[in-house]
Amino acid sequence: MDRIPILKMGRFLLVTIQVDLYDRLATNLEADLVQAVSTTGARGVLIDISALTIVDSFMGRIIGNIGSMAKIMDAETVVVGIQPAVAITLIELGLELKGVHTALNVERGMQLLQEKIGPEDETTDDDSSTE
Amino acid sequence: MDRIPILKMGRFLLVTIQVDLYDRLATNLEADLVQAVSTTGARGVLIDISALTIVDSFMGRIIGNIGSMAKIMDAETVVVGIQPAVAITLIELGLELKGVHTALNVERGMQLLQEKIGPEDETTDDDSSTE
Repeated sequence: MDRIPILKMGRFLLVTIQVDLYDRLATNLEADLVQAVSTTGARGVLIDISALTIVDSFMGRIIGNIGSMAKIMDAETVVVGIQPAVAITLIELGLELKGVHTALNVERGMQLLQEKIGPEDETTDDDSSTE
Repeated sequence: MDRIPILKMGRFLLVTIQVDLYDRLATNLEADLVQAVSTTGARGVLIDISALTIVDSFMGRIIGNIGSMAKIMDAETVVVGIQPAVAITLIELGLELKGVHTALNVERGMQLLQEKIGPEDETTDDDSSTE
């Protein structure tokens, strides 16, 4: 396998990382994801890493890269499904995942993105007007 | 890796198959999915196989099994992301994917499930609000 599928779900893209990223796979993922953001006009990217039990600095860097790339294309990135051991490793390795939000699972990640991005392109019916 | 992550999205479960299923992985997936349907009360299962470029009779049988298992637990199964070559192979192998619906991609699969299942009735795990 040298490509990780990117699923479009409404205004968001969902990527489930199930295997360790090696060089080409990571490069392809970055390229595919930026391309997908461009063609779909997605406003958010969800990266699920619940299948990963370990994480290394390479993986951390790739996720950070993806977040930065998505950001300059006006899409927010949320990493979800971080396992306890992975959270520990990330902090111990000093990986900050800068520019990337995190959430417990996909559902909460989607909620977070909805909040960040705001309602879909129509006038808000809320009492409180957005500034 | 010996487990494929199962993501809960609203009333549905999403499984992205990215690697060839071997014995234990397939058995685990069946068990995990049935367990997930039971604990989450999911009404639909989406299986994305867009990462697969080939499919064999074992894979076809597992998908059929999952569909049947979900069915008797009152959940519909939709297989999405079937690549052209995979569609050809499925038919040439005589694999019917009985009891399983298919759709072009995740979004259409979700639409299909929404239509099959109907509008959301009163949510069970939301906090009850009186209006």
